[in-house]
Amino acid sequence: MKARKIVEEMDSYVPGRSQDEIASDFNLKKEDIIKLGSNENPWGPSPKAMKAIEDEIKSINRYPESQLHELVSEIAEYSGVKDSQVIIGGDGADEIIDVLAKTFIDDGDEFIVPLPSYMYYEYLLKQYGAKPVYAKWDLDENKLDVESIYNSITSKTRMIFLCSPNNPTGTLIDKEILIDIARKNPDILIIIDEAYFEYSEVTNKDLINEYDNIFIIRTMSKVLGLAGMRIGYGLACEEIIEYMHRIKPVFSLTRLSFVAALNTFRDKEYIEDSIKKGIESRQYLHDELSKIDGLKVFPSKSNFMLIGIKDTGFTASQLALELVKRGIIVRDCTSFKGLDEYWIRISICTLEEDKKFINVFKEVLN
Amino acid sequence: MKARKIVEEMDSYVPGRSQDEIASDFNLKKEDIIKLGSNENPWGPSPKAMKAIEDEIKSINRYPESQLHELVSEIAEYSGVKDSQVIIGGDGADEIIDVLAKTFIDDGDEFIVPLPSYMYYEYLLKQYGAKPVYAKWDLDENKLDVESIYNSITSKTRMIFLCSPNNPTGTLIDKEILIDIARKNPDILIIIDEAYFEYSEVTNKDLINEYDNIFIIRTMSKVLGLAGMRIGYGLACEEIIEYMHRIKPVFSLTRLSFVAALNTFRDKEYIEDSIKKGIESRQYLHDELSKIDGLKVFPSKSNFMLIGIKDTGFTASQLALELVKRGIIVRDCTSFKGLDEYWIRISICTLEEDKKFINVFKEVLN
Repeated sequence: MKARKIVEEMDSYVPGRSQDEIASDFNLKKEDIIKLGSNENPWGPSPKAMKAIEDEIKSINRYPESQLHELVSEIAEYSGVKDSQVIIGGDGADEIIDVLAKTFIDDGDEFIVPLPSYMYYEYLLKQYGAKPVYAKWDLDENKLDVESIYNSITSKTRMIFLCSPNNPTGTLIDKEILIDIARKNPDILIIIDEAYFEYSEVTNKDLINEYDNIFIIRTMSKVLGLAGMRIGYGLACEEIIEYMHRIKPVFSLTRLSFVAALNTFRDKEYIEDSIKKGIESRQYLHDELSKIDGLKVFPSKSNFMLIGIKDTGFTASQLALELVKRGIIVRDCTSFKGLDEYWIRISICTLEEDKKFINVFKEVLN
Repeated sequence: MKARKIVEEMDSYVPGRSQDEIASDFNLKKEDIIKLGSNENPWGPSPKAMKAIEDEIKSINRYPESQLHELVSEIAEYSGVKDSQVIIGGDGADEIIDVLAKTFIDDGDEFIVPLPSYMYYEYLLKQYGAKPVYAKWDLDENKLDVESIYNSITSKTRMIFLCSPNNPTGTLIDKEILIDIARKNPDILIIIDEAYFEYSEVTNKDLINEYDNIFIIRTMSKVLGLAGMRIGYGLACEEIIEYMHRIKPVFSLTRLSFVAALNTFRDKEYIEDSIKKGIESRQYLHDELSKIDGLKVFPSKSNFMLIGIKDTGFTASQLALELVKRGIIVRDCTSFKGLDEYWIRISICTLEEDKKFINVFKEVLN
C-alpha cells in the first residue's frame, strides 16, 4: 500500500530501548536507575490520586465518561478560568496539540517555533502538511529573540509556538512580549505552552479573556505527578474550545486517569509541597553545578536545567553514555534542533538523588 | 479565530449527559442502573489485570514506555501473528482508525462504509477531508449487500470499512467475500473491524499474510473487559505497520493500561470464561426476546443484538426513555445512518441483569 507522500518521506521507524533493556544492557537494577531525563515529579503521585484509582479499578470494564464535566470544573477552578474555556486531552498535552492541528491547520500552512524548543510540535504538525519556520532563542543572552519571530511571519503563518518556561532552556518569555505578538497578529494563533508554569509561579492564563488568538497548553505530567496517566488540558476563549470539542476524540481519557486527575487537583498540599521541593532541588543543583569548571549552567524557571558541556571534552552522547553506565539517565540534547552536540538537560530529583548525581557527574568529568 | 472549513461546517458541540446526570434526572441509584448500551463485558475486568494495576499505581508519575515491546509480543501470541504485524493504539481502536487515516488519507479521498455500521469511522475520516460513500447491509436478508460495495468503488476509493461481526447487526461477513474484495482491489485498504471477533469465534487474521491491503482492527474494550482503559490494536503486513509507527502518538497508552492489557492477555481463564458466559447470555436473550410479539430480533455473532421495534408502537427514542426511567440503558439506534427510528440495540449482560431487563421490557411493551 502506498502511504501519504508525507509519511513516505518521513524517517523510518526505529524502535528505542525500554528502561528494562537499558537496565539489562548496563547490568543495572531497574529500581536503582536515577531518571533525570524526562522532567517528571520525582516524589511520586498524589496519595489521594492513588487511593482514588484503587477505588475505581473494579469499573475499568466500563467506558469512560465522554463529557468529563466534573474534571473540567476542577481544572477551571485550579486555573481561574470559566468551564467553557477548558478542554481536556487524553494523551497529555500531545493530544491537545493534535486537536489544535486538526482544528486549524490546512495543508501548506506555516507555523513558527523558536529553536531550541519542544520538538513534538513539529513532529505532530508536519503530519498535517504544515511547514515549520524556525525563529530562535538567543542562547548567549538566554532570551527569546523576538525579532526572529516577527521576521518569520508570512501570510501563511497559522500558529506560533511559545513555550514558557521554555524547554530546554528553562527561560520565561515576558508577558509584554506575548501580548505584543498576539495584538499585532490577530489571525495567528499564539500557543503558549505552560507545561512547567507551576515551577515558575508565573502564568499568562488571564490573556485568554482579552485575546481570542491566545491558547494556553498545560499538562499533568510534570509537577502534578501523572506523566504515566496522559492528561493535558488547554485554556482559550470559548469559540476556540467549542471548535476543538467538535473533533476531539470522544473517549481518550481513561477512567483511571479521570479519577487520578480529579483527586490530584483536590490535593492542594501535594501540589504546594511538590512545587516547594522542586524549587529547592533546582536551587541545590544550580549551586552545585555552577561550582564545576567547564559547565555552562542555565538558570531555570522550570524543573530541569540546560547545561552546555563543550569545555568538558565530552559530547552529550558520550557523557550520557558514561552516566547511564553508572545508572543515571540524562537527556542528550543533540536531537533538539537549534542545539549542537554539546548540551545535556537534567531534571530536578529528590535531594538524595541530586547528591548522588552530582557525585557521579564529577567522577565522570574527572 | 477561523477554524478549518471542515470544522466550521461541522455540527456544534452539544455536551451529552453523564451517567451521574442520568441517575439524578430519573431519581435512580447509579449502582442500580443496568447498562445494555455499550457492549462492555458485564462481568468486570480480569482479576489479574486489577492486581497488576494495584502494583503499578506508585509509578504513575513516570512516563509510559513508548515501545511497548512486551505487549506487542503478547498480542502477537494471542493473535497468532508476528510481532512486526502488530500496532497498539492508546485510545482503543479509535486511535488505530485515526492513525490509519493519518497514514493513508489525503483530502478528497473516498472511503466506503456499508450502512448501518459503526459510525466512528465516518466521524474520524471526515476530519481528514475524506468523503464517505455508502454501501449497504441488506437488512431483510441480514447480510452484506456485496454488489453495493462493488458499485461504490471509484478511482478515489482509498478504504473500505467492513465490520465483522457488524455493529449493530451482529452479522459476520464470509471470508470468501473479504478475499474477493481484497483481491480485486489491490490499491484499496480493506479494513476488517474485528472488535467483537471473540464472540463469533471466527477471525480473518490469517489474511494479512496473503494480502498486503488487509488491515484487521481489534479492541480490548469488549470481551477483554478494558473499555475504560482505552486499548486497541491493529494487525497487518509489516509495511503498513511500519508506516503507521512513523506517525503514531508516542506515549498514548497509559502505564496502567499497559499492565492491565498485558495481564488480561495472560489470564486465559478469564477470557474463555467471558466468551462462554457471553454466548450463554446472548442465547438466553435471543430466546426470550423471540417469544415477544412485535419484535424483529436479529441473530447475533457478537455481544449485542439488534431489535426492530416498529410493530410495538414505540419509536426507539420513546422506548429508550421508558427503559431508562426504570434504570435500564439501551442503545437507541436512530443515530445510525441506514436505520430508521424503529431500532434498538441491547448488549449481553449477566443472566440476572438479562432477566431483569426482559421483565422490565415486557412491562413497558404492555
